[in-house]
Amino acid sequence: MEFKRKNLLSKIATNDGHGENSPYFDGWKAYDSNPFHPARNPHGVIQMGLAENKLCSDLMKKWILENPHASICTAQGVDKFNDIAIFQDYHCLKEFREAVAKFMGRVGGNKVTFDANRIVMSGGATGANETVMFCLADPGDAFLVPSPYYAGFARDLRWRTRIEIIPVDCKSSNHFRITREALEYAYEKAQTWNINVKGVIVANPSNPLGTVLDRDTMRNIVSFVNEKTIHLVCDEIYAATVFSSPRFISIAEIIQDMDDCNPDLIHIVYSLSKDMGIPGFRVGIVYSFNDEVMHCARKMSSFGLVSSQTQYLLTSMLSDDQFVGNFLRESSKRLAKRHHVFIKGLEQVGISCLKSNAGLFFWMDMRPLLKEQSLQGELELWHVIIDEVKLNVSPGSSFRCSEPGWFRVCFANMDDETVEVALNRIQAFVLGQEIQEPDKSKHWRKKHLRLSFSSSRLYDETIMSPHIISPHSPLVRATT
Amino acid sequence: MEFKRKNLLSKIATNDGHGENSPYFDGWKAYDSNPFHPARNPHGVIQMGLAENKLCSDLMKKWILENPHASICTAQGVDKFNDIAIFQDYHCLKEFREAVAKFMGRVGGNKVTFDANRIVMSGGATGANETVMFCLADPGDAFLVPSPYYAGFARDLRWRTRIEIIPVDCKSSNHFRITREALEYAYEKAQTWNINVKGVIVANPSNPLGTVLDRDTMRNIVSFVNEKTIHLVCDEIYAATVFSSPRFISIAEIIQDMDDCNPDLIHIVYSLSKDMGIPGFRVGIVYSFNDEVMHCARKMSSFGLVSSQTQYLLTSMLSDDQFVGNFLRESSKRLAKRHHVFIKGLEQVGISCLKSNAGLFFWMDMRPLLKEQSLQGELELWHVIIDEVKLNVSPGSSFRCSEPGWFRVCFANMDDETVEVALNRIQAFVLGQEIQEPDKSKHWRKKHLRLSFSSSRLYDETIMSPHIISPHSPLVRATT
Repeated sequence: MEFKRKNLLSKIATNDGHGENSPYFDGWKAYDSNPFHPARNPHGVIQMGLAENKLCSDLMKKWILENPHASICTAQGVDKFNDIAIFQDYHCLKEFREAVAKFMGRVGGNKVTFDANRIVMSGGATGANETVMFCLADPGDAFLVPSPYYAGFARDLRWRTRIEIIPVDCKSSNHFRITREALEYAYEKAQTWNINVKGVIVANPSNPLGTVLDRDTMRNIVSFVNEKTIHLVCDEIYAATVFSSPRFISIAEIIQDMDDCNPDLIHIVYSLSKDMGIPGFRVGIVYSFNDEVMHCARKMSSFGLVSSQTQYLLTSMLSDDQFVGNFLRESSKRLAKRHHVFIKGLEQVGISCLKSNAGLFFWMDMRPLLKEQSLQGELELWHVIIDEVKLNVSPGSSFRCSEPGWFRVCFANMDDETVEVALNRIQAFVLGQEIQEPDKSKHWRKKHLRLSFSSSRLYDETIMSPHIISPHSPLVRATT
Repeated sequence: MEFKRKNLLSKIATNDGHGENSPYFDGWKAYDSNPFHPARNPHGVIQMGLAENKLCSDLMKKWILENPHASICTAQGVDKFNDIAIFQDYHCLKEFREAVAKFMGRVGGNKVTFDANRIVMSGGATGANETVMFCLADPGDAFLVPSPYYAGFARDLRWRTRIEIIPVDCKSSNHFRITREALEYAYEKAQTWNINVKGVIVANPSNPLGTVLDRDTMRNIVSFVNEKTIHLVCDEIYAATVFSSPRFISIAEIIQDMDDCNPDLIHIVYSLSKDMGIPGFRVGIVYSFNDEVMHCARKMSSFGLVSSQTQYLLTSMLSDDQFVGNFLRESSKRLAKRHHVFIKGLEQVGISCLKSNAGLFFWMDMRPLLKEQSLQGELELWHVIIDEVKLNVSPGSSFRCSEPGWFRVCFANMDDETVEVALNRIQAFVLGQEIQEPDKSKHWRKKHLRLSFSSSRLYDETIMSPHIISPHSPLVRATT
């Protein structure tokens, strides 16, 4: 009977490829059942697991009130309602493509011009990442993904496409830098397993690290994919969240300066969800230098077109140079300030974080607080933070980090008062803890290196599950 | 080199599964290069290949002006901007689910109540159809689809899911009714080919026929899928376009009255694109009676969420009972009137159409005008209609109709003046033609019956290609 029932649906529907069904949902349950509110529930759990950007929404509201013509639902704009409501061309509005291309150029410091004709729409970065995979890889093929990486990649890249993800372990010892050696190691492993590697996907700026890739690293990755004749997908959805130097460098700028790069191998995923804080509007972009991929992705965009109502609004907004300039400046300033408050507050109690200058989160080093330098130790500490400190942060294992003890902490989805409460809680917690001896930590590192990259780990999803579940999970939300 | 290049991308990217790349693009090219305009280009090609509903957009505009609070981009609604722009929960806005469920019930004549918790969002019917297939079938599995059927099904159901479509040939001799015998025949054929049939998908009202399924036919189909323990997907995206009796009966109403139906096998695809004429807003709905499918489809909706800006607007609009009632009444009235004008105009010159009472098109019988009762004869006539009569209608072969000589004619995407020009043109054309003798036609029918359902036809897409290509093709647009 069980067999029959399973066969009634597809394998996709009956396996756990989406990554949401896991036993590790206590943390999200804790948040759901007891969400913090400064007045109504001051002892509730504070949500620090969502990479939302709420710091500049006031600027948008102001612009909207000043620009009623930008909406098809105002007296000033309603004459466009019919044409827009009926518009479903998968090329999207020409003016929208142009506005997005210009915005991407500006975010990249105007070092490179993006071709509006290469802008392909998709349903958020979620849809854009899946679209690129459908274009580049067949079921069973694999992509190399430097870890720690975005928890939702399992769903976006792999679930319905049936491709595989092979983590490229990056280490704290060199600030989680992506090295040629680590890429080669992962690639060679795949070869011995007879897995066809179709490319590398990197997030720049990194989620969860909050760091940007430097020019040398990017050139090395480009050389690597060129030598292997495999693809490079750059997820640049946090490009405009860089709030201090070094600046963001798009892969488009890198390959512009390289003579020996085959542009057919290079693809960018972009989105307005993080940079502008409008994930509900579902604007995802595929920008490929490969004509065939561009055409194919465009055909696929029928499955996730951006609402024409939203295209129309954003066309006006992104075409307003003065607004865009001011928004980007102000957003950086506010992110920098918020980041500084948290980092300094943690430093006061001896907690350090990976040095970062981008993203809506930082990467907190809690290794000294682990009772045991292991995944188990990390999850134990995480449960304490959820249950007692009442902060819903995300453990490194959610991002397939190969070293236990790191936590991603989101800082742009709350107001200043909540920041203060969160900082007070974590400071009080740390001051009450016994810091573990460094020797233990060293011992663990050695042991773990031997363990990493076993073939069983490759297909075992439980390691990333704590991040997941509940209506507030990043998988319930479209992206995180 | 060619081999290497192909391997660089996926099979999906390099095969023709999308259905757009075909040599038969002269008709669409003709329209693109010479589009009709009453003043600027009165001798241009009139677009009658797009199933767009433009007859009631004035009612929407009026409502929008009267309801500024419904938009987050007005002074009255902007206070909601932040909450809505950040909202990306894949359950979608609760109020939106409720409003859509209520609307679906109303469209179905309030004979059945739809459960708001079963409403799952998707990027248009395009995304909804693909989502259902991903949930129900594995690559290589097949769905039976009564023909003639919507040309975009090849893309929606099959392209990225890698499932197969097996046509169930319906015949003009019984008004293209879906019979138990035809279903059994297709099912048995699949068995002999060792193809695993996972279900049947029917469009009610039918695209391209413009007819509704009667209660007996639906009960027969439900019995069929129950006996085989396979799925039934009902595409009801034209439900509110029914403009005269018999009324539309949703599959939800049918199974409510049947004791022996397993509801886990029944799924509905819905959309607001046709019924409300807003395809640009990309509202597709999956409504499954199967809990597992509902949950899985909801997770998949992350790839094609409806913009929260659009959800918010439509929540208000669909919750306005008075507006909805008036809109549905007025829409039926206008569609009926437009349909009547065309049918009567064609009757005057001896052209008959399949009796229909729904849809944004009718099914025109041009068999008497075919020089040869064959696919070739149909395409020849179609080229004359495109090139000389300058009407872009869609030949039956685009819909895999098993009998040549039928054409789908869209009637709701133009204004009254264009209708008059189109009718004048077709009347003049028919009056100048020699009508073929009926004997020939009979001879063809016999011959064709022997030919139908060869295995080569099953996988040969060229038969449906004339419908396709160009920026105005229904595949460039998200749906047709």
